[in-house]
Amino acid sequence: MAGNSIGNLFKLTTFGESHGEALGGIIDGCPPGIALDFEAISFEMSRRKPGQSAIVTQRKEEDEVQFLSGIFEGKTTGTPIGFIIPNTNQKSDDYSHIKDSYRPSHADYVYEQKYGIRDYRGGGRSSARETASRVAAGAIAKQVISTIKINAFVSSVGDIFIDKPYQALDFSKTESNPVRCPDEATAKKMEDYIKEIRKQGDTVGGTITCVIQNVPIGLGEPVFDKLHAELGKAMLSINAVKGFEYGSGFCGAKMKGSEHNDLYNPDGTTKSNLSGGIQGGISNGMDIYFRVAFKPVATIMQKQETLDVEGNIVEMQGRGRHDPCVVPRAVPIVEAMAALVLADYYLLFKKI
Amino acid sequence: MAGNSIGNLFKLTTFGESHGEALGGIIDGCPPGIALDFEAISFEMSRRKPGQSAIVTQRKEEDEVQFLSGIFEGKTTGTPIGFIIPNTNQKSDDYSHIKDSYRPSHADYVYEQKYGIRDYRGGGRSSARETASRVAAGAIAKQVISTIKINAFVSSVGDIFIDKPYQALDFSKTESNPVRCPDEATAKKMEDYIKEIRKQGDTVGGTITCVIQNVPIGLGEPVFDKLHAELGKAMLSINAVKGFEYGSGFCGAKMKGSEHNDLYNPDGTTKSNLSGGIQGGISNGMDIYFRVAFKPVATIMQKQETLDVEGNIVEMQGRGRHDPCVVPRAVPIVEAMAALVLADYYLLFKKI
Amino acid sequence: MAGNSIGNLFKLTTFGESHGEALGGIIDGCPPGIALDFEAISFEMSRRKPGQSAIVTQRKEEDEVQFLSGIFEGKTTGTPIGFIIPNTNQKSDDYSHIKDSYRPSHADYVYEQKYGIRDYRGGGRSSARETASRVAAGAIAKQVISTIKINAFVSSVGDIFIDKPYQALDFSKTESNPVRCPDEATAKKMEDYIKEIRKQGDTVGGTITCVIQNVPIGLGEPVFDKLHAELGKAMLSINAVKGFEYGSGFCGAKMKGSEHNDLYNPDGTTKSNLSGGIQGGISNGMDIYFRVAFKPVATIMQKQETLDVEGNIVEMQGRGRHDPCVVPRAVPIVEAMAALVLADYYLLFKKI
Amino acid sequence: MAGNSIGNLFKLTTFGESHGEALGGIIDGCPPGIALDFEAISFEMSRRKPGQSAIVTQRKEEDEVQFLSGIFEGKTTGTPIGFIIPNTNQKSDDYSHIKDSYRPSHADYVYEQKYGIRDYRGGGRSSARETASRVAAGAIAKQVISTIKINAFVSSVGDIFIDKPYQALDFSKTESNPVRCPDEATAKKMEDYIKEIRKQGDTVGGTITCVIQNVPIGLGEPVFDKLHAELGKAMLSINAVKGFEYGSGFCGAKMKGSEHNDLYNPDGTTKSNLSGGIQGGISNGMDIYFRVAFKPVATIMQKQETLDVEGNIVEMQGRGRHDPCVVPRAVPIVEAMAALVLADYYLLFKKI
Repeated sequence: MAGNSIGNLFKLTTFGESHGEALGGIIDGCPPGIALDFEAISFEMSRRKPGQSAIVTQRKEEDEVQFLSGIFEGKTTGTPIGFIIPNTNQKSDDYSHIKDSYRPSHADYVYEQKYGIRDYRGGGRSSARETASRVAAGAIAKQVISTIKINAFVSSVGDIFIDKPYQALDFSKTESNPVRCPDEATAKKMEDYIKEIRKQGDTVGGTITCVIQNVPIGLGEPVFDKLHAELGKAMLSINAVKGFEYGSGFCGAKMKGSEHNDLYNPDGTTKSNLSGGIQGGISNGMDIYFRVAFKPVATIMQKQETLDVEGNIVEMQGRGRHDPCVVPRAVPIVEAMAALVLADYYLLFKKI
Repeated sequence: MAGNSIGNLFKLTTFGESHGEALGGIIDGCPPGIALDFEAISFEMSRRKPGQSAIVTQRKEEDEVQFLSGIFEGKTTGTPIGFIIPNTNQKSDDYSHIKDSYRPSHADYVYEQKYGIRDYRGGGRSSARETASRVAAGAIAKQVISTIKINAFVSSVGDIFIDKPYQALDFSKTESNPVRCPDEATAKKMEDYIKEIRKQGDTVGGTITCVIQNVPIGLGEPVFDKLHAELGKAMLSINAVKGFEYGSGFCGAKMKGSEHNDLYNPDGTTKSNLSGGIQGGISNGMDIYFRVAFKPVATIMQKQETLDVEGNIVEMQGRGRHDPCVVPRAVPIVEAMAALVLADYYLLFKKI
Repeated sequence: MAGNSIGNLFKLTTFGESHGEALGGIIDGCPPGIALDFEAISFEMSRRKPGQSAIVTQRKEEDEVQFLSGIFEGKTTGTPIGFIIPNTNQKSDDYSHIKDSYRPSHADYVYEQKYGIRDYRGGGRSSARETASRVAAGAIAKQVISTIKINAFVSSVGDIFIDKPYQALDFSKTESNPVRCPDEATAKKMEDYIKEIRKQGDTVGGTITCVIQNVPIGLGEPVFDKLHAELGKAMLSINAVKGFEYGSGFCGAKMKGSEHNDLYNPDGTTKSNLSGGIQGGISNGMDIYFRVAFKPVATIMQKQETLDVEGNIVEMQGRGRHDPCVVPRAVPIVEAMAALVLADYYLLFKKI
Repeated sequence: MAGNSIGNLFKLTTFGESHGEALGGIIDGCPPGIALDFEAISFEMSRRKPGQSAIVTQRKEEDEVQFLSGIFEGKTTGTPIGFIIPNTNQKSDDYSHIKDSYRPSHADYVYEQKYGIRDYRGGGRSSARETASRVAAGAIAKQVISTIKINAFVSSVGDIFIDKPYQALDFSKTESNPVRCPDEATAKKMEDYIKEIRKQGDTVGGTITCVIQNVPIGLGEPVFDKLHAELGKAMLSINAVKGFEYGSGFCGAKMKGSEHNDLYNPDGTTKSNLSGGIQGGISNGMDIYFRVAFKPVATIMQKQETLDVEGNIVEMQGRGRHDPCVVPRAVPIVEAMAALVLADYYLLFKKI
């Protein structure tokens, strides 16, 4: 209700600001007896963290997850898994320049208006750093639904996009380049473009496509909690996301029914999959795929007008951390959120 | 959890199949003392119901809402509002032809697989008729947040779209034409196109844009329950919806930060509004606007292959109800869902 | 949140005032494929309804449950079960005498203070008639957990109580007398006492004991949702209930650990069962038993002081319906609430 | 759902085993702008912790609460408050003797059966140490509802009980003796009795009475979430609790309506208060009072039969920590749980 939880049977609640002592969360409802792969968790954390390559922010964050409960001799016990991720790099003076002003297209102003108080050190709770907790929990969720395969990748940056269906891509190449685009030629173009944007002190948006395979038939609940509705909410809860479409998406809105219907094969699979693996809110066993739109990051290294707390328009220039394109780093976050949603529906599904 | 509720403080739970005795729902958490405008409720119901014009299905549904509790001498009492909408037009033999087959791109197959049993009369619980309960409850939600203005309209049908920003439109014209498009020239083109699609026995998709004005600053909860995330989920829960974008949406993913940032005026309003009235998941007082993509309705009046319960591919032709473009009828549903989400956040907001 | 729902996976939401058109509810999460025994449901409804014998109120309520959805060809479909129970006997003039006054130990005053408005016809939402919806839903819950046996009975009325352990009782005799006390000699004394109380125009309280047998090991969740905690809440939500104890209960608070510990048999059962079938909040397979205290009904047929809406103390005398001891009629309600709680935990249990 | 959360608007989720690295929790929904009194929090923690006096266990637990988020410059920010309480005293070898056996009247056996895995170091998640997180959160909840006064005290130990109404007691004396009984003569008797029990290597139960004063009229929700129902659930969720009664409680079940009804004063207060400050589930402004029964602690220092994991009955003797009467230490836990429930209802109440 107060917004910091997701899921019902597999439920994550998170806490933490970018510049407090630590972020963290509680996973409640993880099934017992799962022998956790801690290296897989570290790998996901490293995918999300800043400073991975020349095209992302160089700020270092050590994202070590410390598990405090719910795990005994390497296995989940069925009791809540509490974890923290210490903030090792906070310097309170970093943010003194934004103490008295509201950066454009950040949440500074609305937090101040809503709560009457604001942790002005970094983005506080609205910082993208908050997603570290999501990635940690998502890495566990992936292990809960280990037979389901989740692959996200960058499908566009600015105007540059992959001009192939996902079936033509080799997902094993996603991690082979800093842009996390499995099509190498497109990846190169994206990388060059991001470097150019970086030089300009600017930022650029992009899209991530996510493909979920090997999903059992029957995940999802009518009518308000349709599987794609919850996936959409989960994606829209990621910082900077402005849109979500699945299956035929916005293109589907231009089509005719005679083109759009997915005809059946005798085994219940469908010849086409414009439905995106979900019908009536329930998985039908075909691939689930969706696309998520990210706006450009608001912090740019150019001078901009901003509003100070006394109502004056003043000029400000971003400092320190420059993340010209956050989309590559958002790939593990998209996968984590998908895993959290699927784990929740999967546990519910098992019970009927 | 089991999927038939939306909201927390203003909570709607619905029940009902298309061909049972009645649909209905319970609104739990409606504030006391609201003198309900029952004509406004009837008006919303009439906007959703089939048979309104030449371009929609001619099936008649009498959508009279009967309130059974929670209202005393015309005012809400704060106790749950139970309501039913009788199904006056169900004929059990109507659907005998689909008893033994799974229509393409309907939920027949997944319901059978998930539950092992299916009410084959019409779409059962997955029928669009279910949205009647949403519209009834949404009409009350609108009265709870009466200072907030919600205007949805059809912004595209197939390839035809309104080529103007919403600020150039007169929302009072939305109801003046059967397509519910406030731009009259575009409306005429859409209507002609839908008539043509109807002759073909086909269907077509489209998009609805929704503009929410006069929203207080501060609605929305970080981090998982961001206002736009919940709006997105609510829209994606409507039958046939394939996509949701707000503010700059998918276009924003192509932009640079220097173009996308919304600079402040001294009063805290912003010069541009690519953010779509929401920053960090919290309303900032500017207009909220979003766009929803609807695929074409699956039931077409052409012959199609379908799958029968014994695993044979057989030919089937849709009968009876032909709804060539469901998008105009979805306009009040989009508004209802927006109202339900806003009412819920509004009540939560009041308490902080 | 707003108080009219119970359960998570097997969830009941109810609506309805004593003098509106109908009461009812929605059961969300009932598993599919259960062939419902409608006679069993009617039987439970008849146990609850007034006018069953000389010792209860003679007001007639026809408590016919009309199911509107979620059932197809006699079986549950997994979609929400909507139901209504029409109020056939409401006369709006019955209650004119209480329109302007707050009856002592009723909810009239607090409703007026909380909501600023009150449906003064009968108890409105706080009427015991609301429990009709609980009994209807509980009758379905019993069928969901059909292997678990739930037996409640009246264990005391005023100072008269059964002086035997429950193991010495024959539950099949509970329905053989109007007091619902399986010990016939005690039942006779109770009946005589209630008749005397009736003559005095007074009312009397009592206790109900409930025994739940054949419970699987493992129902219940640590730490806040312990099985007995949820059972306690469910019982305390019944009108007029003032206390709940399970296992050794308040007597246990006087004992020593060396007396109270339940020693094991080699098969994991225990020699004694002071724990009441629950350890650490989780069922251990032994009988669950608890006791519920009901205060005397507030409506008496004697003159009493009351408070009018203008702040005057005035004399009032109850009229019409006299229910000298509500405890026998509460037996099916206790069973229904127990069944609702157990069904919810049972569905959750199935998934781990 | 999975049991480790309480509350809706003021919501606590906890994690942690007795012998893991740390316990902790997240408070989601704490209103912003509250200047926290950290000494008051430490005081509550010290009241709960073992080793306070000669009559309780001498095991030392340092219960220092570390707040990790949601507080900025000493004030709450409205974002989630994450906190941990390190386990400074765990020694893994302490519990080797219970690794292979199920202690009588502990949760060892049911955890093993339910989850198939068990953290055998101490009680794991079922350890009373888990209540440290509750006390920390309750100390904050008390500050959210600072005008409401909550006073719990030990009202009986074994057969020794306070023979006065609570109105005759001076709550400021509760902390003046190790038994937390405000009646000094009774306190002395209790203390002597507990010392005797201690010498026997045995344990004894008792009851706590809690009085809540200065409650606004209108807290509580009909019908399932009645204020006393939620209070009851919260109390029953505390380890070792076997019963709950409020107002007249079990005694009320013996009374007549003519004795039990609380007649009004002209100002809406009542002359008597057998209702216990709650009518129809809603606070009426009078004192709320209830009584909670605790069974004796299961761990005794005498030889007892126990069950080993191979199904043999073996003899075992408790070691190390002997807590002859846990009831005095449970006083701050009862207060904490009451504060959590009241804070949740209070926030909801403010919104109507």
